[in-house]
Amino acid sequence: MTHNGPGRSHDIAHLAHVELLTPHPEESLHFFTEVMGLTISGREGDSVYLRGWDDYEYHTLKLTAAKTNGMRHFAFRANNPEALERRVSALKAQGLGIGWNDGDQGHGPAYAFHTPDGHPGELYYETRWYQPDEQTRPALKNQASRFPGRGANLRRIDHLNLLASRIAPVREFFVDTLGALLSEQIVFDDGSEKGAWFSVNNKSYDLAVTEDHAGRRGRLHHLTYAVDSREDVLRAADICLEHGVHIETGPHKHAVQQTFFLYLYEPGGNRFEIANAGARLILAPDWETVVWTETERRKGQAWGLQTIQSFHTHGTPDTPEGTS
Amino acid sequence: MTHNGPGRSHDIAHLAHVELLTPHPEESLHFFTEVMGLTISGREGDSVYLRGWDDYEYHTLKLTAAKTNGMRHFAFRANNPEALERRVSALKAQGLGIGWNDGDQGHGPAYAFHTPDGHPGELYYETRWYQPDEQTRPALKNQASRFPGRGANLRRIDHLNLLASRIAPVREFFVDTLGALLSEQIVFDDGSEKGAWFSVNNKSYDLAVTEDHAGRRGRLHHLTYAVDSREDVLRAADICLEHGVHIETGPHKHAVQQTFFLYLYEPGGNRFEIANAGARLILAPDWETVVWTETERRKGQAWGLQTIQSFHTHGTPDTPEGTS
Amino acid sequence: MTHNGPGRSHDIAHLAHVELLTPHPEESLHFFTEVMGLTISGREGDSVYLRGWDDYEYHTLKLTAAKTNGMRHFAFRANNPEALERRVSALKAQGLGIGWNDGDQGHGPAYAFHTPDGHPGELYYETRWYQPDEQTRPALKNQASRFPGRGANLRRIDHLNLLASRIAPVREFFVDTLGALLSEQIVFDDGSEKGAWFSVNNKSYDLAVTEDHAGRRGRLHHLTYAVDSREDVLRAADICLEHGVHIETGPHKHAVQQTFFLYLYEPGGNRFEIANAGARLILAPDWETVVWTETERRKGQAWGLQTIQSFHTHGTPDTPEGTS
Amino acid sequence: MTHNGPGRSHDIAHLAHVELLTPHPEESLHFFTEVMGLTISGREGDSVYLRGWDDYEYHTLKLTAAKTNGMRHFAFRANNPEALERRVSALKAQGLGIGWNDGDQGHGPAYAFHTPDGHPGELYYETRWYQPDEQTRPALKNQASRFPGRGANLRRIDHLNLLASRIAPVREFFVDTLGALLSEQIVFDDGSEKGAWFSVNNKSYDLAVTEDHAGRRGRLHHLTYAVDSREDVLRAADICLEHGVHIETGPHKHAVQQTFFLYLYEPGGNRFEIANAGARLILAPDWETVVWTETERRKGQAWGLQTIQSFHTHGTPDTPEGTS
Repeated sequence: MTHNGPGRSHDIAHLAHVELLTPHPEESLHFFTEVMGLTISGREGDSVYLRGWDDYEYHTLKLTAAKTNGMRHFAFRANNPEALERRVSALKAQGLGIGWNDGDQGHGPAYAFHTPDGHPGELYYETRWYQPDEQTRPALKNQASRFPGRGANLRRIDHLNLLASRIAPVREFFVDTLGALLSEQIVFDDGSEKGAWFSVNNKSYDLAVTEDHAGRRGRLHHLTYAVDSREDVLRAADICLEHGVHIETGPHKHAVQQTFFLYLYEPGGNRFEIANAGARLILAPDWETVVWTETERRKGQAWGLQTIQSFHTHGTPDTPEGTS
Repeated sequence: MTHNGPGRSHDIAHLAHVELLTPHPEESLHFFTEVMGLTISGREGDSVYLRGWDDYEYHTLKLTAAKTNGMRHFAFRANNPEALERRVSALKAQGLGIGWNDGDQGHGPAYAFHTPDGHPGELYYETRWYQPDEQTRPALKNQASRFPGRGANLRRIDHLNLLASRIAPVREFFVDTLGALLSEQIVFDDGSEKGAWFSVNNKSYDLAVTEDHAGRRGRLHHLTYAVDSREDVLRAADICLEHGVHIETGPHKHAVQQTFFLYLYEPGGNRFEIANAGARLILAPDWETVVWTETERRKGQAWGLQTIQSFHTHGTPDTPEGTS
Repeated sequence: MTHNGPGRSHDIAHLAHVELLTPHPEESLHFFTEVMGLTISGREGDSVYLRGWDDYEYHTLKLTAAKTNGMRHFAFRANNPEALERRVSALKAQGLGIGWNDGDQGHGPAYAFHTPDGHPGELYYETRWYQPDEQTRPALKNQASRFPGRGANLRRIDHLNLLASRIAPVREFFVDTLGALLSEQIVFDDGSEKGAWFSVNNKSYDLAVTEDHAGRRGRLHHLTYAVDSREDVLRAADICLEHGVHIETGPHKHAVQQTFFLYLYEPGGNRFEIANAGARLILAPDWETVVWTETERRKGQAWGLQTIQSFHTHGTPDTPEGTS
Repeated sequence: MTHNGPGRSHDIAHLAHVELLTPHPEESLHFFTEVMGLTISGREGDSVYLRGWDDYEYHTLKLTAAKTNGMRHFAFRANNPEALERRVSALKAQGLGIGWNDGDQGHGPAYAFHTPDGHPGELYYETRWYQPDEQTRPALKNQASRFPGRGANLRRIDHLNLLASRIAPVREFFVDTLGALLSEQIVFDDGSEKGAWFSVNNKSYDLAVTEDHAGRRGRLHHLTYAVDSREDVLRAADICLEHGVHIETGPHKHAVQQTFFLYLYEPGGNRFEIANAGARLILAPDWETVVWTETERRKGQAWGLQTIQSFHTHGTPDTPEGTS
């Protein structure tokens, strides 16, 4: 199994997509297309497939009408077929595998699994590159599709943040079973882990896990898309203000990972983040995990903003446990 | 050997540093520290070791006083010791290896080689992480050193552009011998290659090779450092204007790679670029090389600026061949 | 009459609007609404009334279908009724007055005049403040209307640039007859004036006059709208590229007035500029005119870009003299 | 006397400078020069004269060593000598005049007065334009001095915010006695005024008065300098973080005036703001005062940040009343 430093795996290429559930599908779709600037690739049943203008795959967001909010699944793309096989074997060995399915509109066969905290995930390699049409063909051929000039103009899926009842098993899972790098983490004075950030490529993280203060298992904290600059995040806040979108907190700069963030609730109640990390990359192959202490975290965010209370409690589904 | 698509190597981690020669060492050092905002890590003999505030290694620029300008060597860091061994074997097999040396202030043993066009390069794994002192200790511990608030505040070494008498052999070398991805290239109607861009990680390029219209071998086109935003590049142009720095062309946006660029001549005569590529990354493991045609390149840069003539002819050393 | 320094008039409040002629009204309207992000306030006959999201008046652009391109008229708003009367008297005294008309959808009675070079202008005081509707009501009540989140999101009319066969008479007219401040000008070594920039408030200019190298009278050089930041100008260039808009030159920074510019041809053939001047204001009541010499202008724009040839020759109407 | 709308006075040109007191003069000077990027024009006795790179006058900040913090005086520059006389007469008529003094290093004779709440002010017309030296001469002659490339690179004095025991008398004073425009104000449901913002030119405010919850008279809330863009404010926050500067709140966007703000305490304890208002200007001569209600203010700042408690209580001098 793989740890930080020499030997880190490159089996997983990147976070690929998330399937988000919404009890208000029309309002959620309007939010993602008109306010956020995503583009529709296709529809099927209760689902709409969406992507940012720089996402190279057919979709990075699958928006599905449902009775509750929350996440139906997330997916990583493997770097090649052999890497996929290696990780499927590891999942099976851990008893976390569910099995193969035929894939979806946007990709080929996928292997389903769940994290130790119960979050449903998938791994696949065969994908469908997005093919622009007349409306979305870019002027420069090295770009996935046309810059939309609409709303917040979200560029690309960036990362996913899961809530977990316990961090350590999920942290071990991503590092040992999936071969991710643990780039940063929060460990309190009593040794309890409060959060962990994982990278599978040169981005400083593609996935994070933070503690669910409600003690529930397998919930979603938020999904994040990236824009080009901090000014783009500020402009997105202006646009959200005009559209009456609920802004939970931000824009501000995290101390952890230094992400410049804006947290929203989309109409379905799922937390959604618009972020920019400047040119931040982890290029060092022997990066040492940055461990934040309890004292350091008490200082709040980078410029002193205190973390809002709902940040530790609001997750989706936000229905009482056992319902839906 | 490795080509694009499944199987791409991860043996090379990133461009590590460049040793630049300058016949005007004091003026060049003033340019890099006061105008560009780099910080000095150390000195030895005729050389000064420099880095940007986000460079994790001891140095990314070695500035060496010499009779001519140009590049004495460039270096890549390998991903781990085994990867280094694999690439050294490949270099030897191609007859391009020179041999091991003891390293330098900033890193351990290095294997020297030259490209088919004669550019001197090195590969190493063991490195020296930069250790901040009282003046350079950052407020946030996940940052390599303090943001300087000085001049152009260059963040990090970004890429190197070599001039070559012939592109194809150099292109084959970086792809086959070093395992890089060919992310973009220019091929004219008669089949002649005019430029090639290589990536060894998720950046869309770390190294480029373009044709030397003077027909000379082994010269430097430019070295580039990155800043966080396009506004940072514009601000750098303002600062260069105030300091009388020679601006060759820009700021503008390249069509190739979409880099937002500013080209300068540092006081020693070497071309130097300040660049921003937004959030541009190559995350797809099966990225297909973008091939630009002669017709496409005749349109100029992204927004129509025509490429300045000196861009094809000025390289360093710029002394007449055979001198120095 | 009023010159720079103590005693400068405040009779004119600001540039109010421009009526632009286009032989391609549908394409021009698409350009201004979908690509530039202006909003329609109303229509009448062959005209559409448009404004930026921060323009407080009913319209700042009147787009009128016609056989040729060019400008049918421009208008200043006076600071109060007495100021209007004073300037009308001055116009009459100079023999440049045409007479009163009933106004237009966006304002009350206007006094028509022409500059010494023949540009048709109007002065008025009574106006119609824009009243937002459900679609355009802003979230913050101190804002004229909702930020559109569409295309280049142009904020506000900024300035107008006239071409003139001779600069001096027009310069004298704006300073002496209308009471403007001459903030900057270009005077060549032989004493010939090449351009003049005028301010009627704290903006560093609202109107400019530059020499028509074709020697024609009364033509339009360009109309300009402002955005908030230089990054907004760059983003506008990205959007223009996607829409196939003709970019004449830029983005770059003028030496004169330090405006960060992007020059386009709208589909009707009129030159149009998107600009940002940062926080640049003229607050000094005794501002001395900055006079640029021939030598200084030969250096090109601020960062060295040479002025494109068409900049001195393309004006509208661009039909051969005497036609249309 | 002058109210909003037709007839608004142009007697006052702009906020000219503020004399700030500091019990930690060395630390305060380091803050303003190295962290904020102001430049020293001269020294005299316990005072240092400072300015931003775009301030045209000799100084906009006079930093004076003292036993307490707070503001010794603020000054407006009149538009011309006659305007100065008119306003001095008005001050005398209100019984708020103190008398003429000989001026200071940076300007000629000044008339001293105090606001109804006791803030000491001055009016003058004759000034000393800043003359750049070898170190501060700009590349472009239409700029007051060289862009420093140091710290936060503050551009220009922007506005002053006074605390007052009662708002109404101060509001009447600035509108009626000094001829300012009341651009925005806060009036609670019980009719009590909580704040007022005044403009004497096209900036949307040069001076503000907010309620001192401590009930004290004549204190300073904060002094503000402007930078070019919101990104510049964010970068200033990064720089303050590196230097251990106390950040009280922000960066965020005010609902009132839409200013993008960052509030700091300089080492002497005075609150200091770095701000950007985009291209926001009041160009309408008949601007109607925007009146914010109690309900509207309860929503917090533009994007939802709640106003920090210290914002209503911290003022300088912050020594107990009667001391110093």
